[in-house]
Amino acid sequence: MKTVITRSRRLRGTPFTSRLEKQGVKSYTIYNHMLLPTTFSTPEEEYVHLKEHVQVWDVSVQREIEITGEDSDKLMQLMTCRNLSKLKVGMCYYVPLVDSEGGMINDPLVYKLENNRWRVCIADSDVLLFAKGIASVKQFKVNIFEANVNTLAIQGAKSDKFMSKIFGKKINDLKFFRYDFFNFNNNKFLISRSGFSKQGGFEIHIDNINAGLDLYDYFFKIGKDFNLKPGTPNHPERIEGGLLSYGSDMDINDNPFECGFDRYIDLESDIVFLGKEKLKEIKKKGIRRKLMGVKIETNLINLSAEIPIFNLDEKEIGKLRSAAFSPKFKKVVGIAMIQKDLCKDLQKFKLKLNGNYVFGEVCNLPIV
Amino acid sequence: MKTVITRSRRLRGTPFTSRLEKQGVKSYTIYNHMLLPTTFSTPEEEYVHLKEHVQVWDVSVQREIEITGEDSDKLMQLMTCRNLSKLKVGMCYYVPLVDSEGGMINDPLVYKLENNRWRVCIADSDVLLFAKGIASVKQFKVNIFEANVNTLAIQGAKSDKFMSKIFGKKINDLKFFRYDFFNFNNNKFLISRSGFSKQGGFEIHIDNINAGLDLYDYFFKIGKDFNLKPGTPNHPERIEGGLLSYGSDMDINDNPFECGFDRYIDLESDIVFLGKEKLKEIKKKGIRRKLMGVKIETNLINLSAEIPIFNLDEKEIGKLRSAAFSPKFKKVVGIAMIQKDLCKDLQKFKLKLNGNYVFGEVCNLPIV
Repeated sequence: MKTVITRSRRLRGTPFTSRLEKQGVKSYTIYNHMLLPTTFSTPEEEYVHLKEHVQVWDVSVQREIEITGEDSDKLMQLMTCRNLSKLKVGMCYYVPLVDSEGGMINDPLVYKLENNRWRVCIADSDVLLFAKGIASVKQFKVNIFEANVNTLAIQGAKSDKFMSKIFGKKINDLKFFRYDFFNFNNNKFLISRSGFSKQGGFEIHIDNINAGLDLYDYFFKIGKDFNLKPGTPNHPERIEGGLLSYGSDMDINDNPFECGFDRYIDLESDIVFLGKEKLKEIKKKGIRRKLMGVKIETNLINLSAEIPIFNLDEKEIGKLRSAAFSPKFKKVVGIAMIQKDLCKDLQKFKLKLNGNYVFGEVCNLPIV
Repeated sequence: MKTVITRSRRLRGTPFTSRLEKQGVKSYTIYNHMLLPTTFSTPEEEYVHLKEHVQVWDVSVQREIEITGEDSDKLMQLMTCRNLSKLKVGMCYYVPLVDSEGGMINDPLVYKLENNRWRVCIADSDVLLFAKGIASVKQFKVNIFEANVNTLAIQGAKSDKFMSKIFGKKINDLKFFRYDFFNFNNNKFLISRSGFSKQGGFEIHIDNINAGLDLYDYFFKIGKDFNLKPGTPNHPERIEGGLLSYGSDMDINDNPFECGFDRYIDLESDIVFLGKEKLKEIKKKGIRRKLMGVKIETNLINLSAEIPIFNLDEKEIGKLRSAAFSPKFKKVVGIAMIQKDLCKDLQKFKLKLNGNYVFGEVCNLPIV
């Protein structure tokens, strides 16, 4: 059944929505109370196109929470287990946000714009409310607000060629998870080498909507030579790449060790963050389950809740949380929370789809 | 254009979703990361039916945040400007939650289950993260979690007759915003006289999913005599009734005075809450705008962002935030944030719809 959505101010579009509709967007998801396109053709076609060519994605739903003011470095560190002390202006980090129980609050990319000025590009949960709750009680001198910024991602094999055509060769020197400012038509854009795919690309953080719309239209004016198409975060591609989706793959009931974020957890230095004591406890005890890749012997899957996974003796050993057909493997790939001692490449399992068992195996992330 | 939504674990259904689909649900909205049905026929037909008969609504999206533990009374009060000291077990209150800037965080119904045990039935924002942020820093002894509770609302003119048929005459004695426990099939249900309509009714808070599914099926087994139909929160009915929708009518950029919540703001007693000093300031200065009803001389409107409202001299005087065709007034009714000195019944205005001006007038809430 096709699920039709009723529009309202509460689920708002982005400055680009009317353009996407002219370009034939077929469906959306809701993300941070806004519309995120999910396909213009089929995820499979777009998967193939992304790996060969280049796409423009409207990812304005990655809302940017700005935190400024003299206590904002302190506040930012308090929310994450990753050590931010070496993050310099001009860089961004992928950081797990955790509460005092060690539960995952969100997994944003954080940009350090200046000392004591941050942009937190959030996944799908109201991080602003978490930050406000903490700051209110601490009486921190900070200003926390959703910035009026909308983001376009340029992703795919030809991203570098395409972007240098517009912004000049200098943009090719930008390193991964670094950002800088680049000009188009006398407008300055903050651009980072980042994005929710493993095919390479950039994210353009637009604070001047009209300049952003002009840029969008220019992309498609010159895009033919690059076989540019409008696209969206691609489900099978991001699953294979091991890029996690907050709310689908993990949520507040999971801790960062279970999500495989060990390298982003600093329990040794003297940084102060909310979940530190709890994460020490968890580390000492050891975790009992972990996110892993899976391959499933079927061509079609439609997930709207997690599905239990069984070993061949019918014992539940985990839950499937995301899944999509992979054009590469010609079967379904997915991300599942699996009992720790069975987190082994090639571990066999089965699960029920539409009443019938199908078989699969566990694999490492990224899925190669 | 019909907006089709892609399903995923992140936008999950409720225990009732598969039943709604068999019953012919036509569209959904997303609310608290879950599916909320929006119509089974048309909002206009359902408006008329609701006022004459009785409907069952799946409002499981009103997620229930449970706060327990010895500091939970303190935490609960800290989040709201409404004085909770007189709220007894067996009662619920409609409460504006505010941050330290006096901005609206949410407008839940809070149920006092026991001393130091609360259920916060939330509108569409992650209140759990706000509560966790505060509690983490205060080192409060509390446990905060999303309860595994799903809610069915029985709403409409025949609610009392229908409910007493199932739960006995005792349920008719339940007063407005009170709750009690009632039995069906040896299962106990927490039922409150409440709901997002002005036609009267009840909300059944279900913690045993199988018992809830049996109850749902029983409703439709005996419902014929009452002309029972599946329904949804009805947009024109709730607008006329002045029942506000968080995210559409107000958000964190609005304060509770602007939302008309004066009677829920206690700045006089010694209760401690985050926004108290800021709300005192706002009260002293006075507000410059306020939510009002509007009637607009058109039959059709589709809102996906706020729309500016002008006086007859083309000066912007406010923003339209919600709107729907009213079968009663045979025109569109809505809720708008209006410049304070123009918040007068019959104040004329105009706004642009599809490039043309249409005219309207301000009115009080509820719209009668």
